[in-house]
Amino acid sequence: MEKKKIRICMVGFGNAGRAFCRMLLYKSEELESTYGYEPVVTAICTKTKGILLNTGGLNLQQAIEEAEQRGGFLPDNTGLYQGTVLEAIERSCADVLLELSTLSIFDGQPAITHIEKALDLGMHVVTANKGPIAWAYSRLKEKADSRNRMFLFEATVMDGTPVYNLVKETLPGCRVIAFKGILNSTTNFILEEMEKGASYEASLKEAQMRGFAEADPSMDIDGWDAAAKTAALINVLLKGEVTPIEIRRTGISAITLDEINRARSEGKKIKLLCEGRRTTDGITGIVHPVKLDEKDFFSLIDATSSILSITTDLMGEICIVEKDPEIQQTAYGIFSDFLTILKNISGIRRDYAKQ
Amino acid sequence: MEKKKIRICMVGFGNAGRAFCRMLLYKSEELESTYGYEPVVTAICTKTKGILLNTGGLNLQQAIEEAEQRGGFLPDNTGLYQGTVLEAIERSCADVLLELSTLSIFDGQPAITHIEKALDLGMHVVTANKGPIAWAYSRLKEKADSRNRMFLFEATVMDGTPVYNLVKETLPGCRVIAFKGILNSTTNFILEEMEKGASYEASLKEAQMRGFAEADPSMDIDGWDAAAKTAALINVLLKGEVTPIEIRRTGISAITLDEINRARSEGKKIKLLCEGRRTTDGITGIVHPVKLDEKDFFSLIDATSSILSITTDLMGEICIVEKDPEIQQTAYGIFSDFLTILKNISGIRRDYAKQ
Repeated sequence: MEKKKIRICMVGFGNAGRAFCRMLLYKSEELESTYGYEPVVTAICTKTKGILLNTGGLNLQQAIEEAEQRGGFLPDNTGLYQGTVLEAIERSCADVLLELSTLSIFDGQPAITHIEKALDLGMHVVTANKGPIAWAYSRLKEKADSRNRMFLFEATVMDGTPVYNLVKETLPGCRVIAFKGILNSTTNFILEEMEKGASYEASLKEAQMRGFAEADPSMDIDGWDAAAKTAALINVLLKGEVTPIEIRRTGISAITLDEINRARSEGKKIKLLCEGRRTTDGITGIVHPVKLDEKDFFSLIDATSSILSITTDLMGEICIVEKDPEIQQTAYGIFSDFLTILKNISGIRRDYAKQ
Repeated sequence: MEKKKIRICMVGFGNAGRAFCRMLLYKSEELESTYGYEPVVTAICTKTKGILLNTGGLNLQQAIEEAEQRGGFLPDNTGLYQGTVLEAIERSCADVLLELSTLSIFDGQPAITHIEKALDLGMHVVTANKGPIAWAYSRLKEKADSRNRMFLFEATVMDGTPVYNLVKETLPGCRVIAFKGILNSTTNFILEEMEKGASYEASLKEAQMRGFAEADPSMDIDGWDAAAKTAALINVLLKGEVTPIEIRRTGISAITLDEINRARSEGKKIKLLCEGRRTTDGITGIVHPVKLDEKDFFSLIDATSSILSITTDLMGEICIVEKDPEIQQTAYGIFSDFLTILKNISGIRRDYAKQ
């Protein structure tokens, strides 16, 4: 089989992006021998570490090392590029854009612009950034469809755990009626620590120390991250057209230790739920803390684990749970979308892991 | 679009088969308008109710009514056929065999023979019968592959909840390392009733009354049903080649109320687990009652609900849960496989529910 190249442009090179690159390096020979394509990264765009560009393929290992050990790409790195991100996307000659930039929860930008640019250039797009799905899903999907390009985003909710693909690929003919999930790690972790008796402040500090709460935690605490995920799920699974602003949203900042203790004395636990539902009046989305019975297995989703229950017309209710994810699970979400594109491009539907 | 027929031969016409037929009747117009195929059932083979055959298409509504209200197909039903099941399969001119006959747990027959016959005749095959997957998966899959026919079996474990499709369609590139599940309703229900204080005998009677335990419950109680499911999952997900005989198997008949109470006093619950694992020494499968901590959400899978946890190399552990299934969920498992075939035959990959 002739070996061709599949070129990748990455926007964003944080933990998830670098973990994806490691997975790609690790699996690259298997991918080549199964699909006849050599994956090469031709551009890496970052906000603070610089931009690398080489249409022949960058030295990934070097890029990872410089980003992790030197705080940015070095001046003598031959791939260093001085233009803008949009210019780099254009000059990358990539087949696939990976949009992994930091979420801007109030408008989904600049990720949306990156994705539009890439689709206009004829690239397939994978995003792990939920902003574009929460803010502009139907527009981007239409653009991708009209250009016959794939637009995939499995990593935006529950990392690599199949959520969108679960419905699309394994529940044919089903209409989703409602969903309910625990989808934000930071708040879930804090509520759990408070149940054990820790204060809100101490719990938050612990979450930050473990690396999953941001320095500015308000996006999590006030329910914005959960609202963006709820909007994304509504837009894709319920075919709604909402933005995070339209999700009724209550965070956890008003919850006191007292309330948590009272709930516990009733045999209950407080969890931050994301819910979406199709009713005769339209589609509604809500993020709110809810007291759950301890016999409800949602109450046992602890720490950074997450759960999504999906109710459909033909198949009733099923739930999917992600247990104790690490950064590799996010990387896998990107990798699995990339693999879907590779399979389609190569026309080889066989899965290498099935051999 | 020209309307063509997709012909179905059914072997078995029990609760699940009739529920499938109802779903087919309900969705038939949508299927026709999306895929351009009219589904017609040309044969229905039963062990005690007779066989119906009409290559032009049977009157499904009438067949359902006769089976449910008259105990069998009536002598004046113009479709009545006097030959054997294998002859009926041959004369059905079907494109798809639905093998829904009763499980024979010790050899998978006669379902395996039905499936081989159908594949030899060039039919695609859907089975809800776990026997063939537990006893002869690799042989049947090879036969199907060599004839370029689909062989699908989603309903054999956890009804229509995606288990095989979850791995095949949504976890590309992942190798399954291990699985663990609660997959037998009867034992799960009995253990739960005993926890509430009921005796084993009363619990079993209640399960029989509710319709999910067989008159001869030994297949469930002794762990044979769970072992067959474990073997099926090992054969497909771990690419093993085992039969139910090779699964280390302990049922629940030796569990006393005393033991259950003692577990409860330790804050634990006893559940019948099905486990499979790939180790350096090969693949092992086991069915056994296990004391679970009440913080383990497997302990909250109650009554007829079920759960399967799957651990893979790239994606860590994910779990899928089916909540309170009814017969419709089994019917959906068959329906979703049928839809997969319809999509492939028609070349129309679009899902009608996505419109």
